[in-house]
Amino acid sequence: MPDINPQEFRRALGAFTTGVTIVTSCDADGTPVGVTANSFNSVSLDPPLVLWSLAKSAKSLAAFSDSGHWTVHVLSAEQEALSDRFARRGEDKFSGLETEAGINGCPLLTGCAARFQCRTSFQYDGGDHLILVGEVVGFDSADKAPLVFHGGRYALATKKTGALNLEAADEPHSFSEDFLGYLVGRAHYQFLDGIRAELAAQGLSDPEFYTLSTLLQRGAQSRAALDQMLQHSGFAGLMLPLERLLAREMVRETQQGDATRYGLSASGRRAVLFVIAAAKAREADLLEKLGDWDARVLKNLLKQMIALTDAGSVEVWRAAQGSTA
Amino acid sequence: MPDINPQEFRRALGAFTTGVTIVTSCDADGTPVGVTANSFNSVSLDPPLVLWSLAKSAKSLAAFSDSGHWTVHVLSAEQEALSDRFARRGEDKFSGLETEAGINGCPLLTGCAARFQCRTSFQYDGGDHLILVGEVVGFDSADKAPLVFHGGRYALATKKTGALNLEAADEPHSFSEDFLGYLVGRAHYQFLDGIRAELAAQGLSDPEFYTLSTLLQRGAQSRAALDQMLQHSGFAGLMLPLERLLAREMVRETQQGDATRYGLSASGRRAVLFVIAAAKAREADLLEKLGDWDARVLKNLLKQMIALTDAGSVEVWRAAQGSTA
Repeated sequence: MPDINPQEFRRALGAFTTGVTIVTSCDADGTPVGVTANSFNSVSLDPPLVLWSLAKSAKSLAAFSDSGHWTVHVLSAEQEALSDRFARRGEDKFSGLETEAGINGCPLLTGCAARFQCRTSFQYDGGDHLILVGEVVGFDSADKAPLVFHGGRYALATKKTGALNLEAADEPHSFSEDFLGYLVGRAHYQFLDGIRAELAAQGLSDPEFYTLSTLLQRGAQSRAALDQMLQHSGFAGLMLPLERLLAREMVRETQQGDATRYGLSASGRRAVLFVIAAAKAREADLLEKLGDWDARVLKNLLKQMIALTDAGSVEVWRAAQGSTA
Repeated sequence: MPDINPQEFRRALGAFTTGVTIVTSCDADGTPVGVTANSFNSVSLDPPLVLWSLAKSAKSLAAFSDSGHWTVHVLSAEQEALSDRFARRGEDKFSGLETEAGINGCPLLTGCAARFQCRTSFQYDGGDHLILVGEVVGFDSADKAPLVFHGGRYALATKKTGALNLEAADEPHSFSEDFLGYLVGRAHYQFLDGIRAELAAQGLSDPEFYTLSTLLQRGAQSRAALDQMLQHSGFAGLMLPLERLLAREMVRETQQGDATRYGLSASGRRAVLFVIAAAKAREADLLEKLGDWDARVLKNLLKQMIALTDAGSVEVWRAAQGSTA
């Protein structure tokens, strides 16, 4: 037999993606035990059997092998901290947790993507682990985004979609539908499309809206700060949103010592809140169509992209300390 | 024992995310056999054991149980078609596939995220399935995005990142860091930040660049089509990119019968290609930092978002039929 390097073997095993479960039972005194495991899998539909493996060195081995029953909790994306808690040794893992009574009286965890209450059918030798096969005597599930494990760390899963026939040109020097810069720009402008009617109703151009929105979020600003925002969004030098907003009395000029500051008037605040309400309606509609999972993953990845491209542009996006709103 | 509804049970099992594998072996004649399975999991590190389950009704049951060896191929995100092929019955599944010889002479599939060549250690009863436990005698792996299965369909996995401290204001009426519209806008503008130097070098404003880029991708356009693009990107009525580009001779006016068309001049084409080259460099840098997996998932989700917000804005983004470039 060739030598198996344990570290390389563990890394190769990490290539197989799994969900994350917590398996619980009770020891002879009725004290609940639980461990985090990703070795769960389905085995049989008729009879309904599932399996998982427990290290023979585990403190809870006797409880699991003697009790004759255990429950597998498939964790949701929100339950990473719970997974960490049950992966550690020693502490009172159930302390402070909301639980429900299971079929055998042992506590069940809540908020999971699925739960399978099992009666042990077989216990098999599995090298340094014990393979536990159980018959499912009760189960429930909820439509929750799953917590996923891959390559030794937590991950998120998202539904796979095919190409969308976005019909971009195939010219070698142009952007294709697979160009990230194209996709994020198109997603941005199409999102804005949904609030153009409200912008028009308020008589606001995009840079005027960006100006009002900046003042709402960060409080009164200097002209230099507003110019920086316009520069960042590509509207610098193209028009004069501040002048137009001053003329319409949506923005007021104030003096703070030597410094001139520009802030929202009541009518400016009202106008921008109407547009933000439209944007929030657009958002709610989009989130419902995307679904909780995909929205979660998309936001997660956009945050990554933002962090990776953040150099130098942070100031424009950062909320001012002590801003008034 | 309570009644277990098989459909509901199957759906609940789908809450547990798995990778996708193809397990192969040879029958007594040396003919290769293979099945798609997601019941794979690791069991033991010392000795190195893995397991999977095969339906007792499978045509290949004898081959797998008699041969004494089998190989688990953990599939990559590109191998969905291969997964489908081995999930079907009957056909010659290996026909036309590139293979390599395994330790036991049976063919191995290529392009996988990981492969585990095993010698059967145990065969255990698992209800309507046979549980096969094998000792790993050889393995290899590659850093590839995995094919994932969840809820009865293919999925993609992405690394989970924490909150990025994007410091947006917490004002109830403003956008928070978790607002998708905010994130996609910020990602868009920060991406553009990386090409502002090249835009300045070419003396192009954003709407001038969008105009030239549209002409490059779609060929000569009418003024109405260009106005629609400007309207979509929020630059309509704010400035006159077409007039400025005509004055700089980057765009030429031509007559096609009664219709006036605007197209790129040689200098206009050169200028926009410089900016596109900068955008492609920005893209390459970003993709390297994001990694192949996350880039794949992010694009996948942006395409979903684009499809969901597509109503009415398609024309602006669609490449013209028979465009000249």
